[in-house]
Amino acid sequence: MKKQYLMTPGPTPVPPEALLSMARPIIHHRTRQFKNILKEAIEGLKYVMQTENDVFIFTSSGTGAMESAVSNVLSPGDKALVVKGGKFGERWEKIAQSYGIEVIPIDCEWGKSVDPAAIKAKLKQGKDIRAVYTTLCETSTGVVNDIEAIGKIVSKTQAILIVDAISGLGAVEFKTDGWGVDIAIAGSQKGLMIPPGLAFVSITKKAWKLVEEAKSPCYYFSYKQAKKSADKTDTPWTPAVSLVIALVETLKIIKAETIEATLQRHKKMAGAVRAAVLGLGLKLLAHDTPSDAVTAIELPKSIDGSELIKTMRDKYGVSIAGGQEKLKGKICRIATMGFMTEFDVIVAISCLEIVLKEMGYSVEFGTGVRAAQEALFSV
Amino acid sequence: MKKQYLMTPGPTPVPPEALLSMARPIIHHRTRQFKNILKEAIEGLKYVMQTENDVFIFTSSGTGAMESAVSNVLSPGDKALVVKGGKFGERWEKIAQSYGIEVIPIDCEWGKSVDPAAIKAKLKQGKDIRAVYTTLCETSTGVVNDIEAIGKIVSKTQAILIVDAISGLGAVEFKTDGWGVDIAIAGSQKGLMIPPGLAFVSITKKAWKLVEEAKSPCYYFSYKQAKKSADKTDTPWTPAVSLVIALVETLKIIKAETIEATLQRHKKMAGAVRAAVLGLGLKLLAHDTPSDAVTAIELPKSIDGSELIKTMRDKYGVSIAGGQEKLKGKICRIATMGFMTEFDVIVAISCLEIVLKEMGYSVEFGTGVRAAQEALFSV
Repeated sequence: MKKQYLMTPGPTPVPPEALLSMARPIIHHRTRQFKNILKEAIEGLKYVMQTENDVFIFTSSGTGAMESAVSNVLSPGDKALVVKGGKFGERWEKIAQSYGIEVIPIDCEWGKSVDPAAIKAKLKQGKDIRAVYTTLCETSTGVVNDIEAIGKIVSKTQAILIVDAISGLGAVEFKTDGWGVDIAIAGSQKGLMIPPGLAFVSITKKAWKLVEEAKSPCYYFSYKQAKKSADKTDTPWTPAVSLVIALVETLKIIKAETIEATLQRHKKMAGAVRAAVLGLGLKLLAHDTPSDAVTAIELPKSIDGSELIKTMRDKYGVSIAGGQEKLKGKICRIATMGFMTEFDVIVAISCLEIVLKEMGYSVEFGTGVRAAQEALFSV
Repeated sequence: MKKQYLMTPGPTPVPPEALLSMARPIIHHRTRQFKNILKEAIEGLKYVMQTENDVFIFTSSGTGAMESAVSNVLSPGDKALVVKGGKFGERWEKIAQSYGIEVIPIDCEWGKSVDPAAIKAKLKQGKDIRAVYTTLCETSTGVVNDIEAIGKIVSKTQAILIVDAISGLGAVEFKTDGWGVDIAIAGSQKGLMIPPGLAFVSITKKAWKLVEEAKSPCYYFSYKQAKKSADKTDTPWTPAVSLVIALVETLKIIKAETIEATLQRHKKMAGAVRAAVLGLGLKLLAHDTPSDAVTAIELPKSIDGSELIKTMRDKYGVSIAGGQEKLKGKICRIATMGFMTEFDVIVAISCLEIVLKEMGYSVEFGTGVRAAQEALFSV
């Protein structure tokens, strides 16, 4: 007998209420019954995203919604600032380039958050920059960017601010309206605790003006079509009905816990992971502002990260993530996102200790766990 | 107590095996476990689509995959033939136009199938036509097009043939390779019997040449990225894991029944609906080639179609579909698609008789049901 523990930064574990809701007989999407579900989903999303803006639900991975935030607002030749600093920041650049956008990159060392002043300087130079693309939590490095500070800068300009909050929403603080985020992107399989397949977009009036002018082709992800349908509590295309139904279940859980308590729980769990990592003599990849959604851990040179992940998963049933792209094999990433609590952290750290020891790293059993316990439980 | 009967042309009922598979704990998509599932899904799709071509799975509604069959193969200014004749044929036109494609429409009365000779003539005139877009089953009218004949014509030209088989696959005969279909599009919530949220694309070498040359922007739906990942039994973006798992369950059902027997069952069920309709003194909207996936029924002038649908669903629990666009209120549509058997047809016809009578149409109870029974059961 082996139990499975999923502690990867997406998909994250799905609560039983949501899993079981997907086993109910399927219903048709053009019915009063589904309209009520859609309405509840949108209201719940607005609560979690902390916004009064229009919110649309797309049936796609988060990347589809990221593309929508380029194709709906820009035209070929338009200038856009793109904050790099990780695999997902770089994805913005790739998407924008595929639409013929002139990308002005803000390079940023993997493991560091972006300096808002660098954005300010670029915007000052380029009065014709139409959009700034950045990431809330860079899942590949476990770093959180200061969106509040960036929002203050961008809101004073003609440019709009687009934030990939896929990995952060529901795990770290994110105030769409309060911070002046013009387009916020979220995904289903992270802090929102349902399986992958839905993506969410919120949009301000300032961004709508760009939508009116944009000349890039887009159909399936068209905000205009989404808006026309959303105004009638509908979707332009057949949505992933079962995932929307599951979403209503997880949004109920967040509402019951309250978003403030949800974020507090994440802060506590991630803090415990960080304490354990340092307790074990390891280093965090995030130099300055580590994310509460996922913690990236630098592994000792003697440890093969891919082997570590594989052993934890296949031998012990504990799934954490490895490094991506240039970090492959060099780091491991433990998510504390969504349907997770204190003892999930204890399990992950305990398993990490065991496998590190198996692989020859000097570990005194319980060192990391003790540090985590101290951070989690104030007895 | 009321039982619900879903007989709409998508979503269609999901078998319990598939529903329950979605209630299993979620798994990560970059694992050997999911690779095996993805492999099985692709193999099953190839069996149902009757193809040896590459087959890709996209997390989206069918419309997203339709858009992919424009953005991946054409460039602005390219010429394409589009067969209209229904809401979904017209969708091809809208998508193509949004990409700046020069659309040469083949108009076709709603309720009639396209004349392949019309396609031949247009292709003869326009040697620079790069693609022909058409529909297998036009869900809005219940008409099936003769893709085999169209394939014979298009395959002799430089153009590629793209078929929206979303509503037909698994319900009516469709031989991707045998008929020379260069890009076939399918969806999850029709004959494949799982909830909406996945779309499928198969592609020939002839179409790949166009992909190499195409200059329209596309990222999320990029065939090049899909191919690169598919070659490693992977997907470029996080897929809708639970839907892929459910798909494997329904593909097992189709394999066990065999695709030939599956299509035979659909033929029998749709034949029974048509017999019942005529028995009740009503007319089919499809003038020549009615589809076995969905039957569109012309309603007497005295009957408000929207009211009929509403009563059948809300009072009796039997969900069928109404008319779309210019057919709104004038027709009703009964699907015989996917997880349905003989007695579903009996229920639908019986309920139709009851509500027609309630609404003042002269019906002798059992007239339609008897005709359906005679078509279904040879005793």
